[in-house]
Amino acid sequence: MLNENFLRLSQNYLFSDIARRVREYKEENPSARIISLGIGDVTQPLPQASIDAMHRAVDEMASADTFRGYGPEQGYAFLRQAIVDNDFTARGIDLDIDEVFISDGAKSDCGNIGDIFSTDVTVYVTDPVYPVYVDSNVMSGRSGEKLPDGTWSHIRLLPVTAENGFVPQLSDLNTADGELEGALIYLCYPNNPTGTVISRDELKKWVDYALEHSCVIFYDAAYEAYIRHDDVPHSIYEIPGAKRCAIEFHSFSKTAGFTGVRCGYTIVPKALTVTASDGTEVHLRDLWNRRQCTKFNGTSYITQRAAEAIYTPEGKAQVRRTVDYYMQNATFLRENLQCLGYTVFGGEDAPYVWLQTPLREGSTTERISSWEFFDHLLRDLNIVATPGVGFGPSGEGYIRLTAFGRREDYEEAIRRFEMIK
Amino acid sequence: MLNENFLRLSQNYLFSDIARRVREYKEENPSARIISLGIGDVTQPLPQASIDAMHRAVDEMASADTFRGYGPEQGYAFLRQAIVDNDFTARGIDLDIDEVFISDGAKSDCGNIGDIFSTDVTVYVTDPVYPVYVDSNVMSGRSGEKLPDGTWSHIRLLPVTAENGFVPQLSDLNTADGELEGALIYLCYPNNPTGTVISRDELKKWVDYALEHSCVIFYDAAYEAYIRHDDVPHSIYEIPGAKRCAIEFHSFSKTAGFTGVRCGYTIVPKALTVTASDGTEVHLRDLWNRRQCTKFNGTSYITQRAAEAIYTPEGKAQVRRTVDYYMQNATFLRENLQCLGYTVFGGEDAPYVWLQTPLREGSTTERISSWEFFDHLLRDLNIVATPGVGFGPSGEGYIRLTAFGRREDYEEAIRRFEMIK
Repeated sequence: MLNENFLRLSQNYLFSDIARRVREYKEENPSARIISLGIGDVTQPLPQASIDAMHRAVDEMASADTFRGYGPEQGYAFLRQAIVDNDFTARGIDLDIDEVFISDGAKSDCGNIGDIFSTDVTVYVTDPVYPVYVDSNVMSGRSGEKLPDGTWSHIRLLPVTAENGFVPQLSDLNTADGELEGALIYLCYPNNPTGTVISRDELKKWVDYALEHSCVIFYDAAYEAYIRHDDVPHSIYEIPGAKRCAIEFHSFSKTAGFTGVRCGYTIVPKALTVTASDGTEVHLRDLWNRRQCTKFNGTSYITQRAAEAIYTPEGKAQVRRTVDYYMQNATFLRENLQCLGYTVFGGEDAPYVWLQTPLREGSTTERISSWEFFDHLLRDLNIVATPGVGFGPSGEGYIRLTAFGRREDYEEAIRRFEMIK
Repeated sequence: MLNENFLRLSQNYLFSDIARRVREYKEENPSARIISLGIGDVTQPLPQASIDAMHRAVDEMASADTFRGYGPEQGYAFLRQAIVDNDFTARGIDLDIDEVFISDGAKSDCGNIGDIFSTDVTVYVTDPVYPVYVDSNVMSGRSGEKLPDGTWSHIRLLPVTAENGFVPQLSDLNTADGELEGALIYLCYPNNPTGTVISRDELKKWVDYALEHSCVIFYDAAYEAYIRHDDVPHSIYEIPGAKRCAIEFHSFSKTAGFTGVRCGYTIVPKALTVTASDGTEVHLRDLWNRRQCTKFNGTSYITQRAAEAIYTPEGKAQVRRTVDYYMQNATFLRENLQCLGYTVFGGEDAPYVWLQTPLREGSTTERISSWEFFDHLLRDLNIVATPGVGFGPSGEGYIRLTAFGRREDYEEAIRRFEMIK
């Protein structure tokens, strides 16, 4: 009676492994001052506009005349309209609010979106990758067999490494057996964990491919607010035709510090249809709407008012200041590590810096492994990073550093890196 | 590539059908003063203790020193501990906080719990029933074939009607084909939609049966706060052995007016194990934990502080006052309808009154249908109810009235009922 797919998941979670190692080190070294640049949680407070909006919303809940009970499962129109106006219309993208679904966060939506697809399709993910994409597909029985190297037969990996400029290559798709027709392709840009981006031209290749092969792209734009360069798309819908092949996920977590108050949104365009086995064209929007109406009851009204407030002029200025603060951390980290001779990627349009581990002493080709370098940083510098290999095999030889910490921690971290040079 | 199970769901939602009929009537009769006793949403404001707690929590989010980012996926220990102490220890039930999972509401958990079970088990639901139990199983492919009467081959209905005192009968289980082994049984008490309850003695029969046949009971206790009689269990874990066969869902929506701020919790006891196909005993708690860690990121910190506050002495008193207010509505409605000659059930330990429709004129056996009586109430009394048949075939001949409205609306509703006597 069990869904035994759950039993096929690794018992080890990346972040609990890290937490255990840190805990053990602390027990042995209680006086160590650990700097955590590992988990991607934010540290700056919410924008004041959101704080003010939440106080007002809380007061509304205190009186029967202004109390709000169940809201629409899809989210309140006030927030959906603000999203359409600011995140899409302002960028030349036409959307209707019926294509916007407010949720309690992009993790929920990325995890639940599989509900509306069959379990016999092939899944493509970039490698390294956010673990939720893979684990949620294993749980639902879409992963196929587990292979000797720990990967899955129906979850294909698209390597993104220094060698290909961190851009997934169409040539890495498996064209042998026709399994590409109707595949699900996860793309996350700006990318977690590598902190790298995709240009409009490169993204267009994927949209064109998806249209030609009836694939659906899941485009995770959670880090869109960190984009600084003009040739980097903020939304996949900037690419012509994307509304007919892509679902896009957004989060307020990293944009406006909502990791603790929970809000994100998902776009399922009305133009996105899939042919059912009886030949009818089915709107994925209608299926997702039914999924949400049946298994979700909307996100907190108070949270939705907080999200609406980030689109006010004050809110926008406050969000910009916080994003700039984190991006200054990224720049500081990236530039100083480069000065110290490290090879680093990302961190220009994203809050993550992807550091290539140094060459092994005496070798000109072999690099220190992710976990070895993790242990070195923990033990010798008291800095916690995330081993790249924890995100997939192509992450071996890298570690991820986040820019979401406090400035003084980055200054201290660099002082420690300098000490061992 | 679609999950075509979605295409098997009825296109008609009960509540959107009702909304359409009400809208059409209003367009024809713009001056009508409609009283809505239909949808089960609350109308009274949140307890002041929760309002105060939310203001404090919002202020914490305004400063980097007190800001809270990602919380535990399972919920904060402060809330889990308050739940264990007040809802369980105080009733003689031992629970560990690791058995408590905080969520954004019971609807999400009731809908998502199916993720951890296989799709080839039989499902039992009482009839009439909360539609989420059925629809979520249809979506996941657990429903089997659609039968000519609109029901499903693998979703068995257990009638609860006046004839059996609204108590599901073990004798209605289909024992013919061994499909009971490992079945999933949904029980909701106090019941939505009938407003009736189950005694400890009757519930014990189901626990004993589930233990004997390795079934899992999903016990939805969302309306537990409305119980007034001592012989009615507040939790299935009051029954010996239930920790080995039952998952229990709770909601703060109806207890404390949280329909708009979203919080509930689910208990998955550590003692609840299921045998996997390789013979190992698997703890459902571990599977649910993995599901939540992968596809959920906790509910709002601010909301969790609001929920914690209802367990303070002031919070408890405020919740009690609101629950009493609604129950006085239920009593007023029930007693007055009885005086007027209607046959009514429920409303004694639950915020729903289940009214049997009158006999058809000239008949001594045939009752007016649910939808006919709905139309009569809408057109002749301008009262909106919910047709019982919308909850399942055994709801035919009943309508549901909720007690969550304002007192003055019930007084006016009864005046209108009196006019047509």
